[in-house]
Amino acid sequence: MEKLIYLDNNATTCVDEKVIEEMLPFFKTEYANPSSMYEFAKPAGRALKEARVKIRDLFNAANEKEIIFTSCGSESANQAIRGVLNMNKNKRHIITTKVEHPAVLNLYQALEKQGYSVDYIGVNSNGELDLEQLASSINSDTALVSVMYANNETGVIYPIEKISEIIKTKNPNTKFFVDGVQAAGKIPIDVQQLGVDLMGISGHKFHAPKGVGALYINSKTVITPLIIGGHQERGLRAGTENVPFIVGMGKAAELAIDNLKYEMTEVKRLRDKLEANILKNVFNARLNTGVANRVPNTTNIGFEYIEGELILLHLSDLGICASSGSACTSGSLEPSHVLRAMGVPFTAIHGSIRFSLSKFTTESEIDYVTASLPAIVDKLTNLSPFQTELEALRNLKK
Amino acid sequence: MEKLIYLDNNATTCVDEKVIEEMLPFFKTEYANPSSMYEFAKPAGRALKEARVKIRDLFNAANEKEIIFTSCGSESANQAIRGVLNMNKNKRHIITTKVEHPAVLNLYQALEKQGYSVDYIGVNSNGELDLEQLASSINSDTALVSVMYANNETGVIYPIEKISEIIKTKNPNTKFFVDGVQAAGKIPIDVQQLGVDLMGISGHKFHAPKGVGALYINSKTVITPLIIGGHQERGLRAGTENVPFIVGMGKAAELAIDNLKYEMTEVKRLRDKLEANILKNVFNARLNTGVANRVPNTTNIGFEYIEGELILLHLSDLGICASSGSACTSGSLEPSHVLRAMGVPFTAIHGSIRFSLSKFTTESEIDYVTASLPAIVDKLTNLSPFQTELEALRNLKK
Repeated sequence: MEKLIYLDNNATTCVDEKVIEEMLPFFKTEYANPSSMYEFAKPAGRALKEARVKIRDLFNAANEKEIIFTSCGSESANQAIRGVLNMNKNKRHIITTKVEHPAVLNLYQALEKQGYSVDYIGVNSNGELDLEQLASSINSDTALVSVMYANNETGVIYPIEKISEIIKTKNPNTKFFVDGVQAAGKIPIDVQQLGVDLMGISGHKFHAPKGVGALYINSKTVITPLIIGGHQERGLRAGTENVPFIVGMGKAAELAIDNLKYEMTEVKRLRDKLEANILKNVFNARLNTGVANRVPNTTNIGFEYIEGELILLHLSDLGICASSGSACTSGSLEPSHVLRAMGVPFTAIHGSIRFSLSKFTTESEIDYVTASLPAIVDKLTNLSPFQTELEALRNLKK
Repeated sequence: MEKLIYLDNNATTCVDEKVIEEMLPFFKTEYANPSSMYEFAKPAGRALKEARVKIRDLFNAANEKEIIFTSCGSESANQAIRGVLNMNKNKRHIITTKVEHPAVLNLYQALEKQGYSVDYIGVNSNGELDLEQLASSINSDTALVSVMYANNETGVIYPIEKISEIIKTKNPNTKFFVDGVQAAGKIPIDVQQLGVDLMGISGHKFHAPKGVGALYINSKTVITPLIIGGHQERGLRAGTENVPFIVGMGKAAELAIDNLKYEMTEVKRLRDKLEANILKNVFNARLNTGVANRVPNTTNIGFEYIEGELILLHLSDLGICASSGSACTSGSLEPSHVLRAMGVPFTAIHGSIRFSLSKFTTESEIDYVTASLPAIVDKLTNLSPFQTELEALRNLKK
């Protein structure tokens, strides 16, 4: 492939060169097991400590003891959710949303088979949560409320602080887990202000490698471990620590904090430019999120009456990477559960594309995509069997 | 630290330069999420496939579909053990050994609290398992037998094939999990000949990085997943794949297979030389394993009437890394549960040191340790409060 324009940063990100640099010594020279007692193991132990402080700062947690390292966002979610439920075995009610990441939804479906009752809160056409439904669902049997911070497909940010307040009012014993995977590196996180009990993140969504994650656990929240064994992570996560990746994620967190302003201004400007140009130049394009509050890097656009997979194929031929939903469900031809929950019309849902930018996205890349996309959509629109509907839409937009 | 002589390769190993080289492109350039559909994700997907074949070969498994990737040996063990038990919820009996790795023992102790009955099979003074006790413990309620392939502290190899036959005779429905963490890279593994149902390994014990492991699951064995979420690893292990480390572990497996002959001749020769010289030059040294069959890189030597932690401290000052037990329990002053199970005398158990070599260990390193150790032991022996006993021992050895 000659050219690569990577606009799928919600699926995964490239590892920052500075992160790689920081990790390398822990493969080559400082390779000791941090649990070992000799001098040689000290730098590895120190590096773990420093990384924990950096991740604490990313969460703005009160204490680095509230952070444990995991192997990924899925492990963080499994650890948090099952760790909370195991501590409150008599409570069997869970509340989550219809738009969670498929990984989290699959876990809840498995828990339903184990006898848990799960309420899935819906969203409106902008992708915004129905907070009244959420409030009225909380009862004395509710062990856990689980809401993502930002949606992976649409970028919509959910009102975590408000939800937290609702929970504390309705049932202060209910624990609140937030899947923060798509928030880290894109918007500021402040677990103290948000008032959440647990929040999971994944390194590879903010330029650390795949294979490392973290979980914030409020000091007042007690959970059981998912992986039982050695004393690592204060007994909450067994297994020799992945020192290089933990160090790398620490560095990535530091860089992410430094980059937040750029993310919220420059990355947002490029995202808005891409979005505005597509909506202007493509008559059958619609913004799937409307006016909802979003992370700065994501746009989800529906191309009516054509097949999203075909758009992606044509983009891929030009070296442009985008996606039609989460990578975890790609390959299936099922339309997005998120867009369905938002009531995106059937005519647009199959042709919906997510573009997700990063700090490495350049203006010329955005200009190239803006220039290339109309011709692709045009070609596919001409092949669509819905010519009458398209003609009507064209006339409407004129 | 000027000099580093790393003889703690059962705790962790340095990452092979060739492994680092193989991993680097997957951080920098081929960073796609392997689940993505575009061209750019193809190399990552291919690399996963190739690594799976290499790990299949390390196990000599019949099919690469019998391999799943995990984040570490502890996860492999938790996944195997709890995955088997969850599939057979009415069976509540488990058999394991008194000398398993603490990570595995801790899990069984947690399972006992959940209502499982666990038999812990003992060993003789050479560290060899009591197979009669094992055979007579198997009953119709036995869900799982769990035995390590090689012991991390002593290097003793357990007769997996024989145990497998015993299990098949006594209760063919009982599943057999083998913790292969200390075998991989040290002796040939052949899960088909051994007749095991599940075997776990950890990359960082054979020159891949910390933070990646694998689990062999015989095609006839069905288990539930530990980390539920995305479709990765055929639904058995959710989470975006750690492509660089999986690729690295594949390379390390390939190198380990190529290196087996060297390990079993040269590494063994150096281990035997170190062992023989210490036993010859230090009157109060004893080999803790006697005649047992061992992996080629490990020796466990008891220094009578002195404190092992003090020996390690002095070795550390010279840049020599060794250990008194598993890194997972280091820091605790509890004497080794393995040596206790073997009935190593109280006078030697506190002064027992494990030296574990690797393919990178050189003859001059071994000569340096051989030359340095007697003076250290001598100094500590002179400070020991057990001078009468030491004098008797000295006379006995003359």
